[in-house]
Parts: sequence; C-alpha cells; structure tokens
Amino acid sequence: MKKFAIAIHGGAESIKPSELDKEKEEKYREGLTVALQAGYKVLEKGGTAIDAVEAAVMTMEENPVFNAGRGSSLTQRGEVEFDAAIMDGKTLRAGATGATRYVKHPISLAKVILQKCDHALLIGTGAEEFALRQKLELMDPEYFVTPEKDQAWRDKQQEGLKKKHEKMGSMADTVGAVALDMDGNLAAATSTGGLTDKMKGRVGDSPIIGGGTYANNEVCAVSCTGEGEVIMRGVVAHEVYAMLKYAGESLQAAAEKALHLHDDLLQGDKGLIAMDTEGNAAFAYNTGFMKRGYQEAEGEPFIALWEKEDQNYKSIGKAKKAKS
Amino acid sequence: MKKFAIAIHGGAESIKPSELDKEKEEKYREGLTVALQAGYKVLEKGGTAIDAVEAAVMTMEENPVFNAGRGSSLTQRGEVEFDAAIMDGKTLRAGATGATRYVKHPISLAKVILQKCDHALLIGTGAEEFALRQKLELMDPEYFVTPEKDQAWRDKQQEGLKKKHEKMGSMADTVGAVALDMDGNLAAATSTGGLTDKMKGRVGDSPIIGGGTYANNEVCAVSCTGEGEVIMRGVVAHEVYAMLKYAGESLQAAAEKALHLHDDLLQGDKGLIAMDTEGNAAFAYNTGFMKRGYQEAEGEPFIALWEKEDQNYKSIGKAKKAKS
Repeated sequence: MKKFAIAIHGGAESIKPSELDKEKEEKYREGLTVALQAGYKVLEKGGTAIDAVEAAVMTMEENPVFNAGRGSSLTQRGEVEFDAAIMDGKTLRAGATGATRYVKHPISLAKVILQKCDHALLIGTGAEEFALRQKLELMDPEYFVTPEKDQAWRDKQQEGLKKKHEKMGSMADTVGAVALDMDGNLAAATSTGGLTDKMKGRVGDSPIIGGGTYANNEVCAVSCTGEGEVIMRGVVAHEVYAMLKYAGESLQAAAEKALHLHDDLLQGDKGLIAMDTEGNAAFAYNTGFMKRGYQEAEGEPFIALWEKEDQNYKSIGKAKKAKS
Repeated sequence: MKKFAIAIHGGAESIKPSELDKEKEEKYREGLTVALQAGYKVLEKGGTAIDAVEAAVMTMEENPVFNAGRGSSLTQRGEVEFDAAIMDGKTLRAGATGATRYVKHPISLAKVILQKCDHALLIGTGAEEFALRQKLELMDPEYFVTPEKDQAWRDKQQEGLKKKHEKMGSMADTVGAVALDMDGNLAAATSTGGLTDKMKGRVGDSPIIGGGTYANNEVCAVSCTGEGEVIMRGVVAHEVYAMLKYAGESLQAAAEKALHLHDDLLQGDKGLIAMDTEGNAAFAYNTGFMKRGYQEAEGEPFIALWEKEDQNYKSIGKAKKAKS
C-alpha cells in the first residue's frame, strides 16, 4: 500500500488536567477523531493532500468546540473575524485570508483563493466579496457565535480596562492539519477565530505563509497554533523547514527547536504539528496540552490532549502501534 | 567611529535602459539619494535602526515617483490600499499593516503598531481606526493618486477583460530599507501600494514578516520587492536568514540563492536588499534593474539602478570606494 498520512491539531493551551472538565475533554477527543477520519478518508481514496487537510479542518470549523468558523472567539466589537491559510507543497501555491467574516468555511475560501485567484492573500471586505462571487456558503453572523464564546466576550467587557493588559483569552482552539498523499505531495492548512477580545482587523499567524502555515514537498508541512503575534515574529513554520533543510535536524528536533527559538523574546503559548516527506509527524508545544491526532496508511488513529500521551507516539516515531 | 550602515530600495522591474526616459531615471536617483540621506542622518546622530529605516521609507512614501504612500498603484476599484511592515531585529517585535487607506505614512502606522499595539498585523478598517486613535496623519484619498497612476488605471479599464491574465502592471516601485545602528541593532522596513489593478483586499508580501520583511540582530535584515505573491510563497526574507544562519552562505550568496530558490515554481520579478550584522549589504534581483542605495559610516553614498552599476560595489564588498 502506498504511503500516506495526516496529522491534525485543535490548538495548544497552558492548562492543567484539573482545569478541563470531562465533558469538554470528551468533546475535544470526539472532534479530533472526526477531523482525523475526514482527512484520512480523502487520502485513503487517493485524494490529494490539499483536499485532505481542507476536509479535516472543515469538520473543526463546523464544530463549535474549536475556535475556527463556528465557535470562533469574538473581537472587541463582539464580532467574529476569521484567519485561514492553505498551502500546496508541490506547487508552493498558497491561499490565505485574514479578518474575514460570514464565510462558513474560511479554509475553503483559502483553497479557492489558491486555485482561482491571482493573489495569495485576500483580507476583509475584499475577501468576503470574492467569497460571494465564488458562491461559497455565507452565514448570518449569529451562526458563528456560540453561548460559550458570547459569555467569554461579555466577561471581558465587564472586566473592562482594569484587566486590559492581562493575557488575552482563549486563542487555544485554533485548528490545523498537515498531510502527505499517495503521490508524495505535502499540504498544510490552518484556520482560526483568533484571540478573544482582539482588535478589529487584527490578523494572526494562521494566514501568514511561513508564519503559521507552510508546505514544501522537498522538506515538510507545518501548521502552528498559539499566540499569533509570537508565532508570526518567529516565522515558526518556515523555521522548522529551515532547521530540517539546512541544519540537518531531525523532524522532532526541528519542531522543538523552532518552537523554542528566541524563547526570551518570543514568550507565549506556542504549538505546532509538522510532517516530513515520509509521512512522519512531530508535535511540539510549550503548554503541556495540545489537541492533536495522527494517522498513517493502515495505522491506528492517534488522538491526544496531554503531554504524557506522546509517550507511545514518541517511542516508536509513529502512531501505528499507539493504542490511544 | 562606530559602525553603522543603511541600504534602501525603490523596487525592481524588468525593463531595459531604452524603456526608461532620462527624466524619470533622474527622479529615481534623486529620490533614492534623499531617502538614503534621511536614513543616514538618523544613524549618524546615534539614532536607532528602526528610526532610520522609517525615515528613509517616509521620504519615498511622500515622493510620487515611488509606489508607496503618494504615488501608489490603484486597485481594480480605483482606490489606493497600502501594505507596510517594520521589524526590530533586537526585540523581534514587528508592526505591519495591509490593505489600509488614508494613512499618509503607512510605515509610521507599522511602527506605531510595533510600539503601541498588542498585535503585530492590523488590516483594513481596523488598522485605519487604530491610526485615527493614534492621531497619525490621514489624507484625502485624492492626495495619493498621481496623474501617472490614474492613467495606468484608466488604461487597465479600457484594456478590459481581454488582457486580464496578462502581467499585472507596475508593482515595481515598492520601497524598503534595512539598517544597522551604532548599537549593533538591525531593522527592516517595506512599504508599497501593491500591484496595479489588484483586487480589493489583496495583501502582498511587504507586511508579511519573513515574506517581504525580516530583521534579526543575530543574522540579518531583509526587505523585498517584486511580485508579492511569489515572494510570499517563497518566504524569501526568512530564506535569506536561513541560508546565512544554517547553510553557511555568504551574504551575497544567501541573497541570490534565496531569490532564485524554486525559480521553476516561483516565477516573476523579484528583488531584495539584505544587511548583515557588520553592516555589509547585498542586492539581489532577477530584473536587471532595481533602484537601490547604500551608505555606511563615513562612506560615500552608492546609488544605482542598473545591474552593471553593481560592479564597483561588488568588487569591494562595500560602497565606500564606489564613486556612484
């Protein structure tokens, strides 16, 4: 059977097991399983890596438990604004969108930009108008707002200025995927609602090619999560590529070293998934917690939230034998 | 005297000497000279690299001959939309803005975002409102529209759909600067009006950290120009950094190799300026023509447009002895 593989993430966050209730933990695992299956099925049928990462991310954009599409964090103005990017490692073509509203599947808008637009990054109203023209599904803004995110926003308003400079709330459920298809092509996709209480027009690392998203058939595919400003300034996805390509690092070492590079200057929650040209995956995060999953051809699905769950995965380098 | 240096560019373009009239050539050389002086003066007084690159870029934003601020290309809708970024190599802090209107000095908006905003990239209306709040100078949209760019836009409208897929017009006068200050800090800045006839909301490589703009005190500072989509997909500024840091390339080799990497997939006009931690500069471009300049402490200013003018610069590695 031909080699193929997919890895996904649903965001990284600095929390302890005691801070996550069982019901939500279960929803995360379920959502990751659904996403992993959606991507795996595309690959299994001989589909492209691009279609696989899109399919995986779409399920998480529909799932209100993740901060992408439905369930996105609200801006200071109480609106949702999406960032997303997708990149094809074969052609190095990319599509990305930032601070875009209404579009049900921002990752699909990114794909349509990649496929049908002379530009690689479209933002705001211009991106929304392009989505309209391309007949993508648009939704009433209310569709995207879940009770949980609405409450988080209301809490922020009550806290008011006194807590303004405290850590901005949940960016923790950004979603992403990387995949290798049977033809040896890599792709990466990332989608997010961004930071809770972010300013109108703020764009994070997700749609930044080389920042939060990168794919190159010769080297690797990467999707990041965490505090967007920090990931963007670190050009983290491309740093993984550079360490692999030029510094001779292993995949896992490149992922971890890129994540921690300039830790003194680039402080904040950071996480990433990376896949090499053989379909091996690496997970790196400084939070102790990252929703993630992996499955390769004929392998068992690997789904994990906590750091200790990497034990099986790391020891064998693949998820195949990890009974998650 | 302490070491310091600045390099600037005013865009790269595939044209021949016969296609550029003498008057415009003179305006380019004058504009570059003014920009170089503005940046040099800041450094000479012990100012920061960030302030130097901002000062250099500001003069070109005011100069209608360049495609940044006043003189920007018009979108399909006949409007101007600016992209700009600035990065501090000491702190790795960055400020960037995309598809922003009204702001007289987009590079100054980028600097205010770097200094006073929790976010690194603000776009569109959100960025404009932030500029208002920060009391940056805003202008009537007419201020930015020069007769030349207005005519170029009208020509595009007349050509209509039949030429839609031909090369989009002048992106060729994007501006940028890199500098090393007396304290050993590097900075990079890039500002552009983007492609003629670009779609509303299109953002190019200029505000993409690692794409068109990057600075890191340990390695280099880079500012790119050319077809934004191609530079963005190549993560060109960060590629220069990676080749210097990990592949052991010289500055000039890193600049040229990064520019030409994946030339098969990333076709288009490309150019960049790069500066290392010693204040050496490299110019790389595939167009035969890039408006550029360089000056180091106590050195003569080097101003050039055509490739052959690099002869002096290249042979000695510095502009000091080049009588431009």
